[in-house]
Amino acid sequence: MDIITIGKKAKAASRLTASLKTAEKNEILLKTAEALIKNTEEILKANSTDVEKAKQSGTPGPMVDRLALNEERIEGMADGLRQIAKLPDPTGEVINMKTLPNGLVVGEKRVPMGVIGIIYEARPNVTSDAFGLCLKAGNAVILKGGSDAINSNMAIVNVFKKVIEEMGINPDIVQLIEDTSRKAATELMRFNGYVDVLIPRGGAGLINSVVMNSTVPVIETGVGNCHIYVDDSAKTDMALNILINAKTQRPGVCNAAESLLVSEKAAPEFLPAAVKALKEKNVEIRGCEKTREICKDSDIIPATEEDYGKEFQDYIISVKVVKDVDEAIAHIAKYSTDHSEAIVTESYENAMKFTNEVDSAAVYVNASTRFTDGNEFGFGAEIGISTQKLHARGPMGLKALTTTKFIIYGNGQIRK
Amino acid sequence: MDIITIGKKAKAASRLTASLKTAEKNEILLKTAEALIKNTEEILKANSTDVEKAKQSGTPGPMVDRLALNEERIEGMADGLRQIAKLPDPTGEVINMKTLPNGLVVGEKRVPMGVIGIIYEARPNVTSDAFGLCLKAGNAVILKGGSDAINSNMAIVNVFKKVIEEMGINPDIVQLIEDTSRKAATELMRFNGYVDVLIPRGGAGLINSVVMNSTVPVIETGVGNCHIYVDDSAKTDMALNILINAKTQRPGVCNAAESLLVSEKAAPEFLPAAVKALKEKNVEIRGCEKTREICKDSDIIPATEEDYGKEFQDYIISVKVVKDVDEAIAHIAKYSTDHSEAIVTESYENAMKFTNEVDSAAVYVNASTRFTDGNEFGFGAEIGISTQKLHARGPMGLKALTTTKFIIYGNGQIRK
Repeated sequence: MDIITIGKKAKAASRLTASLKTAEKNEILLKTAEALIKNTEEILKANSTDVEKAKQSGTPGPMVDRLALNEERIEGMADGLRQIAKLPDPTGEVINMKTLPNGLVVGEKRVPMGVIGIIYEARPNVTSDAFGLCLKAGNAVILKGGSDAINSNMAIVNVFKKVIEEMGINPDIVQLIEDTSRKAATELMRFNGYVDVLIPRGGAGLINSVVMNSTVPVIETGVGNCHIYVDDSAKTDMALNILINAKTQRPGVCNAAESLLVSEKAAPEFLPAAVKALKEKNVEIRGCEKTREICKDSDIIPATEEDYGKEFQDYIISVKVVKDVDEAIAHIAKYSTDHSEAIVTESYENAMKFTNEVDSAAVYVNASTRFTDGNEFGFGAEIGISTQKLHARGPMGLKALTTTKFIIYGNGQIRK
Repeated sequence: MDIITIGKKAKAASRLTASLKTAEKNEILLKTAEALIKNTEEILKANSTDVEKAKQSGTPGPMVDRLALNEERIEGMADGLRQIAKLPDPTGEVINMKTLPNGLVVGEKRVPMGVIGIIYEARPNVTSDAFGLCLKAGNAVILKGGSDAINSNMAIVNVFKKVIEEMGINPDIVQLIEDTSRKAATELMRFNGYVDVLIPRGGAGLINSVVMNSTVPVIETGVGNCHIYVDDSAKTDMALNILINAKTQRPGVCNAAESLLVSEKAAPEFLPAAVKALKEKNVEIRGCEKTREICKDSDIIPATEEDYGKEFQDYIISVKVVKDVDEAIAHIAKYSTDHSEAIVTESYENAMKFTNEVDSAAVYVNASTRFTDGNEFGFGAEIGISTQKLHARGPMGLKALTTTKFIIYGNGQIRK
């Protein structure tokens, strides 16, 4: 099916999803979850085709692992849908309703966005998550997964569509673009009037391509060059704990730390301990001149300008000694992707300064950046983490998949 | 100055504007207002150059009128800045602050957007309004006005910069792009990383060009193909009042009605009265077959498909007889620009249906669409009216020029 047809069908289906009652949406979520389990065999079969193809084309191991499904992962997808069914429906609330001097009653009603496009890479579980979250917020969804996972994605979406159709509901509420060409992706990105928002989920290359090529509004997600700044007064143990957690607890994710900044007062005591702890976790250290001088026995690689701007997503960290909190804030302003940054300090003044002046989606005092996550923040689930300032910033829950409209009740008012 | 330099200066200045206290921002607003009045002569001189040039190149009268300043209009600009000084500062509030089970305290703080770009056409008063609103919300602003108004805009911005510099504040908080070429506009539209959001203000051509060419996030504003639907049970007098107000009180603006829908039950009584009232106001009527049949003595022009989708911004209206509220909603879904629509009805059921199902920024029951306006809705002032669903929808006040960031206070928490 061509993209134009998919877009038009989605637009029509979005009127239906917007009108579904919460109970009806939850029923779809529970039935699709059940169907995933029932059709495990079929989905695994399709997935094994993708996995075989990936292996044969020499795809790196971690990528193949992201792609691979098994019974447990399908259980996980089904469980995700059941969790979404339990979340409160974000639509329908009316806020700021008030009566104007002329008697007009004006309020802002939270409503679905309409049609949401998701462009993503190898993980087939995004297919299920994105469908569930978009539907719960009352939207129709167009999915465009990576070519690596096409058979898996088709199998999953077919399972969904069959159940939805059996329930007597238009299955166009979820559509997968089966054409995995770049042309199809570009068409989706320029489908103004049919797609209300595009959310890319994946690596920096994918996200950048969507941002640079879309005319449809985009929510930029995910790239995280996150900093830990250890201030003069930081407690060494706390700072070490936070650093090691932020860097090594799960280095491949966007809220992992990529860069350590240490104040010059704290450096002589803190840096040798930090380097030792990082080395024990097999983290490669790329340090500034001063770092290398302080830890001269540790054989630290010199950091390049490029290293400071990099999201390694690996056991690598850049380290820089800065004069004070002001220089740390300036360094972050220059190199950060504005995702998550933390200060470790016992100074009230510097804690306030850091939270006020650092312009990132999540700014921490004395805690690991790894908490920037919809589940951790209590949203129940997330569609991604926005690093842009428009519409949603930081972890995006169901509310980020909605918009508002003004509703106005009058009794004949006209403007003078 | 080249666009890159302007962008970098704006980015740097946005750290300053974000740190200004409300009282400091208000002082700038009041002093720049005063300076506009003091420099009236200089501004009018620059404006007369623009006006002369426009007249010589055969610019239509209404366009020249938009461009022309006089003492009263400059007073109006100054007064606008003083009004903005009186509005509450939208930044600094922290919402949804809560303590997570692990003791982390998480809240969302409202903060400035950063750098806002405004691309606009002939009205020099936008220069002053946009500067005032962006500054009050803590942002640096880059202005790109039309070439028609370049001398006026330069004079106004120079007045601002001089006062700001005299106050000891970096005048880069407001910058005008003096290069009026298309190339300069395109560079601004693709200046990701330096411009956080672009807001176009002007006609459909300008807005479409910004939407289709920007890689920077855009808030789409303003084009309004607004509908009035007269339902079976509408009170004729109320419907006539609303129709005439929405169409003729100020036909050149985006919240004016462009299309009248009438239910087939209401049509025989309502349409002849409506046509008479519209004709008295010199409104040209382009009607469907049924409209022409019912009002066959009135010499109504046949409506084309194109007419239904058009924002006339003039004394012209399209008229269509529809079966019922469902057909009205479907017609609106097909042709509307999703700005403002109104139903006139005494039916509770149809009023609820219309407000639920019409997917526009403002949906009215028994009132004129002309109320879709920041001042009317009690925002004090507006930067534009968003017709997109991301970030802001409908009239945008100061809050639409801000974003939020998560601030998290811990005492050593790490993720398990």
